[in-house]
Amino acid sequence: MTPPADAINSLKSLDFFKQAYRMRVDDLLAQRKAGKKVVGTFCLFVPDEIIFAAGADRVVLCGGKVDTIPLGEQYLPRNVCPLIKSSFGSVVGGCTGKGEACPHFGVVDAVIGESTCDGKKKMFELMQQFIPTYLIDLPQKPDTPAARQYYLSELEAFQEYMERLTGNKVTDERLREEIRNGNELRKLMQRLFNYRKAARPPITGLEILQVTQRQLFLSPGQLKAGVARLCDELEGRTGGPSGPRIMISGCPMSAGNVKVPRIVEERGAVIVVEESCTGTRAFDNLVDETKPPLEALAERYLQIPCSCMTPNDRRIDRILALAKEYRVDGVVHYSLQSCHGYNVEKFKVQQALREAGIPMLAIETDYSTSDVEQLRVRIDAFLEMLA
Amino acid sequence: MTPPADAINSLKSLDFFKQAYRMRVDDLLAQRKAGKKVVGTFCLFVPDEIIFAAGADRVVLCGGKVDTIPLGEQYLPRNVCPLIKSSFGSVVGGCTGKGEACPHFGVVDAVIGESTCDGKKKMFELMQQFIPTYLIDLPQKPDTPAARQYYLSELEAFQEYMERLTGNKVTDERLREEIRNGNELRKLMQRLFNYRKAARPPITGLEILQVTQRQLFLSPGQLKAGVARLCDELEGRTGGPSGPRIMISGCPMSAGNVKVPRIVEERGAVIVVEESCTGTRAFDNLVDETKPPLEALAERYLQIPCSCMTPNDRRIDRILALAKEYRVDGVVHYSLQSCHGYNVEKFKVQQALREAGIPMLAIETDYSTSDVEQLRVRIDAFLEMLA
Repeated sequence: MTPPADAINSLKSLDFFKQAYRMRVDDLLAQRKAGKKVVGTFCLFVPDEIIFAAGADRVVLCGGKVDTIPLGEQYLPRNVCPLIKSSFGSVVGGCTGKGEACPHFGVVDAVIGESTCDGKKKMFELMQQFIPTYLIDLPQKPDTPAARQYYLSELEAFQEYMERLTGNKVTDERLREEIRNGNELRKLMQRLFNYRKAARPPITGLEILQVTQRQLFLSPGQLKAGVARLCDELEGRTGGPSGPRIMISGCPMSAGNVKVPRIVEERGAVIVVEESCTGTRAFDNLVDETKPPLEALAERYLQIPCSCMTPNDRRIDRILALAKEYRVDGVVHYSLQSCHGYNVEKFKVQQALREAGIPMLAIETDYSTSDVEQLRVRIDAFLEMLA
Repeated sequence: MTPPADAINSLKSLDFFKQAYRMRVDDLLAQRKAGKKVVGTFCLFVPDEIIFAAGADRVVLCGGKVDTIPLGEQYLPRNVCPLIKSSFGSVVGGCTGKGEACPHFGVVDAVIGESTCDGKKKMFELMQQFIPTYLIDLPQKPDTPAARQYYLSELEAFQEYMERLTGNKVTDERLREEIRNGNELRKLMQRLFNYRKAARPPITGLEILQVTQRQLFLSPGQLKAGVARLCDELEGRTGGPSGPRIMISGCPMSAGNVKVPRIVEERGAVIVVEESCTGTRAFDNLVDETKPPLEALAERYLQIPCSCMTPNDRRIDRILALAKEYRVDGVVHYSLQSCHGYNVEKFKVQQALREAGIPMLAIETDYSTSDVEQLRVRIDAFLEMLA
């Protein structure tokens, strides 16, 4: 048995991300005490820029842990995805004291939801019974002018909501500032991912997850400092572990959820890129700094290739491009149980990869450990095929 | 054992609906031969009025049969709802000859989809590989002016699509005519349902299903003639079976799917109303004939209380109102397996009914017969509780 891959590169600057949890919670508590509003988000389609421009802070509430699922299942059907059940259980636990919940679920003044998928959209209605919840509607045909107009109007309404919540006016100037900040961060994340294009990437997939799972949890300033230090440490470094180069594509992996990447890397492969919301989708496109800010935000965010969009050719194209850029040997298509969007879209991803001659393994799983042995066997067989 | 409830009232005018299948398929084939375009639809959110005003015909393609599901599962995940798998299997079977399919799946020139739920939305992308498929995007927050504007623009685009498909111009005059026709049909369906408010309804739920399952299958003229004859037969008639008065609320029951209502009525209850797309949702609201036609359509259709909408208080209010109007003793909440929308919304329906003192039984099922015995036991226990 090889040692756990996350220990292999011994990157000192990752310590910051390991210890960041308590620091950030204290930070949020202190901010709230000083009168700042904090909102909880669940999705890349909620623009941070608007929240920050309103003088509020945000923290991602996507649950990746199995232990809050039983509480979630008291309200939600068992056959919705584990991320939804885990998140809901955490928020309810945090608000009511009925269950265990990581402390950051208890520090938000409001939840900002979106209509990206059926399960989340309807879950937010139940969440409203525990905590003020605002929902941004999202058009699902991303490429028409009417869809962009509708999303823009939803962002305008969201901006007004944030203004009411905080009592602060969102000015174009503040939005522009946050757009510049956001773009800087995106470029920094792109720089981080670029190191993984090396023949022997100096950072593994499990190590990267320690960063990407904290991306929407930390403040932009904290994230920027941490990623900059990490990039500096990686600069010029060579000779990470070698093995088949794997792309993970599909659903996000929220903090607490590392099951599949852990197995993939324990079995001797190297994850070189994640095409997911805890991967490239978070920082792929920049916001156009020359356009009116809210329009520029609407334009950029609607291009996120989430499977909620139809058709979602942008994702297929991106997977093929990333496979080339990162010299990928095989793709692990990762979907959360009962996530209809990614589960159905898998068929088209498989078609495109087959045509490109890139093998794909499809995994649909939850947060439990009951399928770990089966996953090991399947992943072993897949990696053997790539060798 | 009581005799099957669908034989109890011996309504002669139901023969028309029993025999309507072959007649309608021949009719569609003849129309196509004469150059008319026929589109397939899956949802109440696709306005018939626009299709008819373009000189085309339409036929509903929602599958209610179990035998086309295996073919559907060659493309779709097993854990999407049976309606989606059955429909997809039928269309692929009809287009490719790869599988058995009812002949009407083979007679359409194009499919008109909509983004009502994740499973269907993504399924339409795969369907596009077999048959031209057009998708109408649907805002999911129904009560904002921006949502109405977006839906209106989607209907305008759809109208243009139908004009291109048929080569016919859709005039306001033709739209107005179809709106009047549609409203007449809705009023007729309302009249039909009104007979069920009687102390001993002269028509059972299973008998009504023979009509409602053909509602979007027959042409409006055929439906109108059939329902008018049925209403005339019911006029003044009394003395149907008695038993606990049940409302079915939830997912649609497409042709072929009668499992749950059959058990409910076999066990001695009478279904007096269906709050579903094969029930009141299809004809509840009229289109305003005084407004600009496309705007009036957008306004009316966005009020359909489908669980894809958020929040969907309109449905809860409607369930409570129907329960009063139809003097309902208990509600059977019916959802198709893995239908996240209705499955999550069930929680709020349950809350509202509990508050109103109306018992509810929640059933989540598919098209197989494997749970029939279990359903009988659960339904028996529920009915006993109502007695």
